Amino acid sequence: MTENLPHDKRPVCILGLGLIGGSLMRDLATAGRAVYGWNRSAETVEVAAGDGFDVTSDLPEVLRRAEADDALVVLGVPMPALGFLLDAIAEHAPSVFFTDVTSVKAEVHALVEEHGLSGRFVGGHPMAGTADSGWSATMTGLFKGAVWVVTYDNAVELDGDPSSAEYMAAERWLDAWSRVVAMARHTGADVVVARARKHDSAVARISHLPHVLAETLAVAGDNGGPLALTLAASSFRDGTRVAGTSPDLVRAMCENNREALVTALDESIALLQQARDGLARESADLKSLAEEGFAARGRFEARAGRNKGDLTNRPVMRVQPGAKGWLEQLRSAEYMGAQISVF
Amino acid sequence: MTENLPHDKRPVCILGLGLIGGSLMRDLATAGRAVYGWNRSAETVEVAAGDGFDVTSDLPEVLRRAEADDALVVLGVPMPALGFLLDAIAEHAPSVFFTDVTSVKAEVHALVEEHGLSGRFVGGHPMAGTADSGWSATMTGLFKGAVWVVTYDNAVELDGDPSSAEYMAAERWLDAWSRVVAMARHTGADVVVARARKHDSAVARISHLPHVLAETLAVAGDNGGPLALTLAASSFRDGTRVAGTSPDLVRAMCENNREALVTALDESIALLQQARDGLARESADLKSLAEEGFAARGRFEARAGRNKGDLTNRPVMRVQPGAKGWLEQLRSAEYMGAQISVF
Repeated sequence: MTENLPHDKRPVCILGLGLIGGSLMRDLATAGRAVYGWNRSAETVEVAAGDGFDVTSDLPEVLRRAEADDALVVLGVPMPALGFLLDAIAEHAPSVFFTDVTSVKAEVHALVEEHGLSGRFVGGHPMAGTADSGWSATMTGLFKGAVWVVTYDNAVELDGDPSSAEYMAAERWLDAWSRVVAMARHTGADVVVARARKHDSAVARISHLPHVLAETLAVAGDNGGPLALTLAASSFRDGTRVAGTSPDLVRAMCENNREALVTALDESIALLQQARDGLARESADLKSLAEEGFAARGRFEARAGRNKGDLTNRPVMRVQPGAKGWLEQLRSAEYMGAQISVF
Repeated sequence: MTENLPHDKRPVCILGLGLIGGSLMRDLATAGRAVYGWNRSAETVEVAAGDGFDVTSDLPEVLRRAEADDALVVLGVPMPALGFLLDAIAEHAPSVFFTDVTSVKAEVHALVEEHGLSGRFVGGHPMAGTADSGWSATMTGLFKGAVWVVTYDNAVELDGDPSSAEYMAAERWLDAWSRVVAMARHTGADVVVARARKHDSAVARISHLPHVLAETLAVAGDNGGPLALTLAASSFRDGTRVAGTSPDLVRAMCENNREALVTALDESIALLQQARDGLARESADLKSLAEEGFAARGRFEARAGRNKGDLTNRPVMRVQPGAKGWLEQLRSAEYMGAQISVF
């Protein structure tokens, strides 16, 4: 894929240096990008500075610097801390563009809207992580080959008078959008576009629902006592793996995406109830679930490979930010789950 | 563990040379045991004979041979073929003892009872397998480190007059039970004891339920369309892995264990409904499922290790077949999911 990534000399300013923010800082530095950051904890700042990074625990200072050098600001903190950072951006960096890395998007878009900052925001969600957190868990290459979702809820097509305020504001937003895509690409991630609600509905199904089902399986297995745990083998092991995730983390993910997860749970309960009733009636109703589940897994494998690390087989679509018809392109890419390439 | 495995010069006769029966034949031959077998397909017999095994497609002949040399007979066929083999045993091998390798036990015990053969039967279930089947998939070492469940529904304690017919019949059954345990141990499997219904309840929870939940997750994810499949990562991959199992195989497993699986499904649906309602009400009801699921996964890891291939940490109990108190020992071992060691 030959992409026209903007040759962006402007820096990236990362607020929050946990697993995602810190690993992003390492990747951007490795790629030769200008990058600096902030963390609330002086201890983290000390360790990151010791590792050679340009970091501070002074938020107003770092935001004034970002404002002065037109940095792209990355919100690298969990949901509950976002409001605090948005307030600080409004106060200390009144014209910067910013993105985030949290795992749900509709609530973030709503929060940004509440702060009156929508025109300067592009949502992001790098779908990578490990079981560990904090600066000590950061690494280069965390995002390589992962999907980095970039939202386009605020996207427009360039139209009208190029000297109008609207046109120039749109141009600036499109520039910021391209900078977010380029930043993600510099980490080796593949960029997929989705509007906030489409993103949240998809991750409810493929990321949050797996946690709830894993926990359900773990409890139902454990209800069988020590004998069941002794007999448990690989189907139980794989099916319960993510039940080993910290309950607080699971709740934070799921409870920030209630509406979409409730829909996915309702579908799941209906499928299970139908299977259960089919079994109890000694009819053939497990047939449809077994066959549909097999077909669905087949479609996943066709796209993502059979085993972890297999080559993926996703469509790639080229988009031209702001060009006539590009919103239609984005909606097609979103529908197809395509990677995008900017030209 | 020093075990007194009976130094059994008597042969094993395996009926059905698919993945399980054929791999068992390879292991027993490797262990220096006398072993011969039967398969319905002349083609399989030809290939197995070419591999150096003592096999035939003549069922009456092989059963007369087993009767003559007091072989332990292993029923290595799927459920639907069991009745046919039980008829043949009743006709051609009226005094042999036999075991099976099918994945549910209550239905097999009932079928054996219907044939009036309970006094000569010990149920078995080696919990090993691969995605492939048939003689071409057989291998040595398939059962190494796996759990091999042996039932004890028909077990008695030796008591009363040693010259009585009852005492001698009990002695013969206990000898057969020990032979089944020794055969399993010769493959490198760990033996766990369970009555048929306890076994079926446990495998419904840890083997059949994981398939139904994996299929449900696969369908609910796929309902999100291509975007969802593109965003799906390791939690979805692991959670849907066994949805790649042939639907016919899943139905055969699940539909032979209806009652126990319905119970496990009812528990699962109730847990999911509670989580769903908690989310919809914006109460903290996901808390209990997340915490209980995490604790349950922890108990599984404590017993079975965190990753596939980790050392297991199961209790081991020594039992003495037929001794006073041994039924109590078996029930304790069953409750604890302990491996047993015969002395």
